[in-house]
Amino acid sequence: MALKLKLKKFIPVFIVFAFLETLSLMMAGQSFAATREFNLTIEEVRIHVAPGLDFNVFAFDGQVPGPLIHVKEGDHVIVHVTNNTSLPHTIHWHGINQTHDNWKMDGVPMITQEPIQPGDTFTYKWIAERSGTLWYHCHVNVNEHVALRGMWGPIIIDPKHPSHLEKKVTKDFILMYSSWQSPYSTHYGQGGGPRDEADYWSINAKSFPMDMPIRVKKGDIIRLHFIGAGDAFHEIHLHGHDMLVVRKDGYPLPHPYFVDTILVGPGERYDIIVRMNNPGRFVMHDHIDKHMTNGGKEMGGAMTVVEYDGIPKEDWYIWKGKSKTYDPDFFYTQSMKKGYGMFTNPKFKGTPVE
Amino acid sequence: MALKLKLKKFIPVFIVFAFLETLSLMMAGQSFAATREFNLTIEEVRIHVAPGLDFNVFAFDGQVPGPLIHVKEGDHVIVHVTNNTSLPHTIHWHGINQTHDNWKMDGVPMITQEPIQPGDTFTYKWIAERSGTLWYHCHVNVNEHVALRGMWGPIIIDPKHPSHLEKKVTKDFILMYSSWQSPYSTHYGQGGGPRDEADYWSINAKSFPMDMPIRVKKGDIIRLHFIGAGDAFHEIHLHGHDMLVVRKDGYPLPHPYFVDTILVGPGERYDIIVRMNNPGRFVMHDHIDKHMTNGGKEMGGAMTVVEYDGIPKEDWYIWKGKSKTYDPDFFYTQSMKKGYGMFTNPKFKGTPVE
Amino acid sequence: MALKLKLKKFIPVFIVFAFLETLSLMMAGQSFAATREFNLTIEEVRIHVAPGLDFNVFAFDGQVPGPLIHVKEGDHVIVHVTNNTSLPHTIHWHGINQTHDNWKMDGVPMITQEPIQPGDTFTYKWIAERSGTLWYHCHVNVNEHVALRGMWGPIIIDPKHPSHLEKKVTKDFILMYSSWQSPYSTHYGQGGGPRDEADYWSINAKSFPMDMPIRVKKGDIIRLHFIGAGDAFHEIHLHGHDMLVVRKDGYPLPHPYFVDTILVGPGERYDIIVRMNNPGRFVMHDHIDKHMTNGGKEMGGAMTVVEYDGIPKEDWYIWKGKSKTYDPDFFYTQSMKKGYGMFTNPKFKGTPVE
Repeated sequence: MALKLKLKKFIPVFIVFAFLETLSLMMAGQSFAATREFNLTIEEVRIHVAPGLDFNVFAFDGQVPGPLIHVKEGDHVIVHVTNNTSLPHTIHWHGINQTHDNWKMDGVPMITQEPIQPGDTFTYKWIAERSGTLWYHCHVNVNEHVALRGMWGPIIIDPKHPSHLEKKVTKDFILMYSSWQSPYSTHYGQGGGPRDEADYWSINAKSFPMDMPIRVKKGDIIRLHFIGAGDAFHEIHLHGHDMLVVRKDGYPLPHPYFVDTILVGPGERYDIIVRMNNPGRFVMHDHIDKHMTNGGKEMGGAMTVVEYDGIPKEDWYIWKGKSKTYDPDFFYTQSMKKGYGMFTNPKFKGTPVE
Repeated sequence: MALKLKLKKFIPVFIVFAFLETLSLMMAGQSFAATREFNLTIEEVRIHVAPGLDFNVFAFDGQVPGPLIHVKEGDHVIVHVTNNTSLPHTIHWHGINQTHDNWKMDGVPMITQEPIQPGDTFTYKWIAERSGTLWYHCHVNVNEHVALRGMWGPIIIDPKHPSHLEKKVTKDFILMYSSWQSPYSTHYGQGGGPRDEADYWSINAKSFPMDMPIRVKKGDIIRLHFIGAGDAFHEIHLHGHDMLVVRKDGYPLPHPYFVDTILVGPGERYDIIVRMNNPGRFVMHDHIDKHMTNGGKEMGGAMTVVEYDGIPKEDWYIWKGKSKTYDPDFFYTQSMKKGYGMFTNPKFKGTPVE
Repeated sequence: MALKLKLKKFIPVFIVFAFLETLSLMMAGQSFAATREFNLTIEEVRIHVAPGLDFNVFAFDGQVPGPLIHVKEGDHVIVHVTNNTSLPHTIHWHGINQTHDNWKMDGVPMITQEPIQPGDTFTYKWIAERSGTLWYHCHVNVNEHVALRGMWGPIIIDPKHPSHLEKKVTKDFILMYSSWQSPYSTHYGQGGGPRDEADYWSINAKSFPMDMPIRVKKGDIIRLHFIGAGDAFHEIHLHGHDMLVVRKDGYPLPHPYFVDTILVGPGERYDIIVRMNNPGRFVMHDHIDKHMTNGGKEMGGAMTVVEYDGIPKEDWYIWKGKSKTYDPDFFYTQSMKKGYGMFTNPKFKGTPVE
C-alpha cells in the first residue's frame, strides 16, 4: 500500500547509503585527521547525588559523569583505560561503529574482548567516524554499572559539515539523565535487579536542587544534548520555548521537527536547538511526575531552571542563592568552547571509598 | 557524515524559525484577537473512576478532566483561579510559551510564582500564541496532584491557517489518559511515591466499561486529541483504521505519517486524523496489556469502542445497553462545536468530599 | 503557528488518503489475489525460555512464537482456529483493518465476537490489505495471554510495489520481544497483575544465551522486523552499524531515518534495513539495562550477536560452541525464503502440559 508512491523517496536514501560508504572509505585514508590520546582511570568513589543521598560509584577519572571527550569527525582516538576498582569493566563507545576491522575495540565482555581486570590497563583505539552526540559506558553488569554506578560520559564529535543552523549555536549544554536506587548506595555488586525500583532521578548525577541552572542571554541559540544514560525513561519538557529536534542518536534528522516534551529512553540521544528569545525563568523537567521527587519528596529529581541574564531573583525563588555555588561547567558548556580534547570537571569528582 | 547532504534541508528550517518569530511579533500587535475571560475553581470532590474505585481528587470546577478551554490562535485569555481546597496549587498552561515578558504566568511554584494558598484567588493572563492540542495542570506536588488527583484539563487552540486536511475534520474527540493508585483513593497528601504502582488506567478519568463509545458515521473525518495527562505511558492502538499523525505537542509535523499503535507518554500530545470509512465496531485501547484491567481484572482500563451508526448490537456485545447512559460530550465533541469559550461537563463532576 | 507554511504539505497527504481508498476498492475486485487457507491450533505446552525458566504457555500450533504467516498484499487468507486449551481465546490480526464489512473477523471478545471456547473451532477470513510487518495475538485476558503466555506470531505481507531499497534485501530476521514473570510459570489463569514485575526478557521466547546469533556475510542487506509482542518496552541497540528505519507498524515512512537505538513498545513494529559492511562480531541488545539479565543475573535477556562469516571464534567468546545447536530458522530467515504460506518451526515447540 502506497509503496509505489514512496519509490522515488527510497532511491535517494539508497544513494545516501552508498555515498556514506564511499565517504567512510575516503575518510580512512585522510591525512588531515588528528590523533588524540587520552588516559582514563576507573575509580571507586562516593558522590553526593541528592539531599540525603550519597552513592558509591565506579567513576571514570573519579567523576560522574565521566570526562567529556570532544573531537572532530575523522579524528583518531586512543584511550588508555586503567581499572583501579575491585571489579572487572570494559568501555563501549556507543555510536562508534568500529569499522575497518576494528570490532575488537567495541568493548563488550566475552563477545569482543575479555573484561579489564582490577589493576589492568587496556588501550582502545577508534576513529570518530560519524558526528553528533555519542557517549561511552561500561558494558559489564550493565544493570548495576550503567544503571546505578555512574559509568558513563559524553562524546561530542563535531561534524565536518555542520548545518547552517548548527553553525549558529552559541552555547552547548550536555545533560545525562539517570536514576538511583538508594538501598544499594553503599553495596557494590548489588542493585539493578528486576524488582528494584529507582527512588532518585538526576541530571549529570545531581538531583534538583543540587544541580545547576541553564544560564543564557537573549539571542543565544543553544543546543541541548540529551543522553539517556541510565535505565529509566525521561520525558523532557522545556517551558517557554520551542524545541527543534535536529539529531537522533547523533544522526541528522532528514526533517527536524518541533516538540515541547520529548521522550529520552535508555541509550538514546537527542540534539535539540532552541532560540533563547523569551527572557524570564523557565523550568525544564522530566514530565514523568514521580521523577520530580527525591526519595518521594518534591521538588526534586530531574529538573533544572533556565535563567536569563538580567532577571531579578525574588526572595521566594528556590534558587535565589544559587550564584554562590554556581558551576559554569556543570553542563560542559565551558569545556565545549575549549577546542578538542578530554575535559574533566573537578566538581563532579567524588571522595575515595574506604 | 551525511551532513553536507542535509545542509539544504536545514536552511528552510532556519527560515521557519525566523519567520515564526516575525509572526509572533506581528501577532502581539494584532487588533482582531479576542479577549476571553473565565473563572475556574479548584474543589475537593470524589469521582467514580471504575467499578469499585472512587477517588478523592482536586478538581477544576469540580470535574475531572477539567473544563475545555477552546480559543483561537492569537486570543488573549484571562483565568481567575480560586483554590477551594485545603492544599496549595498553581496552574501551568502546558504549551503556552508565555512570551513578551509574561513568564510569571507560567505557573511553577517557587520558580515563577508562590503557590495559590487555600482560599486565595490568582489571575492568569496569557496569549494563545500557538495552535493545536495543549493542556493545563497543577505544578505543585505533581507526583500526587497530576499523577493521581486529576488536576488537568484540555486546551484546544484553533489555528489561523488550518491545513487542507484539518479543514475537513467533522468531529473532534479529546482523550486524556492517566492512571490511579487505589491505596490512596481517600488520602489526600499521599501517593505517587517511587515504589507506588498504578492499578487502574482510564480515558477522561473513566475506566472501561464506565467510559463512552466513540460514535461516528461513515464518511466522518475525525480528529483524535491524545493527551498523556498522568505519569503512565500508553500505547494507543486503533483497530480497523489508519491513524495519520498530523501534530505532536500541538506543532504541525513537517511530514505526517501513518501508525496503528502510538506511544503517548506523560506530557505529550498527538493529533491524529482518521477517515471513518469502515463501518463496524472497533476497539481503541492501550496496548500495554495490564492497562486493560481494573485492579487486575480484565476487560477494563484505557479502552473504548468506535461504534458506527447503523451497526446492530448483538446480545453478547458488552456495551449493548450503553445507549441508556450515553454522554455525547464525553470526549468534548459537542463542546468543540460550540465555538470559543470554557466548557464544563456536568457528568464529569464529583461529589463534595466531607 | 506555521500552519500556513504547512498547507502545501498537507494536500498531498490528503490525496494519498483518497488514493489509498481507491486502491483498496480496486483490490477488492482483483482477480490475481491468491487465497491461502491454514489450520491453526492452540495448545497448552511448556517451553524452555531461559536457564532456569520453563513456562506454561498457550501456544499457536504448540510453538512460541506462533507460525509465520507470509502472504502477498491483496491475498485472501482463511485460518481455521481450534482451541485445544482449557480457557477461551480469540485471535486479533493486528494491522489488518478488516474493511468491506469484515469487522466480525477482528477478534475482540464481547465486541466483535464471542470467544472461542475450549474444543471449538472458529474460522477467520480476511484480506491482506496492506503490506509490512503485522502480527497476530489473542485478545482475551491480554494481560496474561499476550503478556505472559506467548500467544503471538508474525505476519509478513509482501508489498505489491516494494521500494528500491526493499528489493535489495538479502535476508529477513523477525524478532518478537517480550518478558516473563517467573512466579506464574506453572499457574495458568494468573499473572500480569498491576503489581507483578517481569524478571526475564527474550527474543522469540528465548533469553540470551539460549537464543541464536544473527548470521550474515559482508554485502548482505538485512531487514530486521522488530515486534513489541509482550507488555514491556525495549530499546534495541545494534552495535557497529547504522539502522535505517523504513517502516513503522507496517506503513512505509515518508522519510526513513537513521538510529542506533530504537524504542519498541507493546504492539509496535519497526522495519529496519541495515547494510552489513563491517565484518566482525557485534551485539544487538535491549538497552534497558535490567533487560539484559535472567532473573537478575547478567549476561542474559533480550540480547543476540551479529556474527559475520569468516570471523574466528576465540576461546573466551561466550557463544564459541554455538554452531552445534544452531537453528538457521530462529528468526524465520529460512521460512521467509520459501514463498508464501504458513511456516512452523519444530524447535519453537514446547512439550505438552500434563
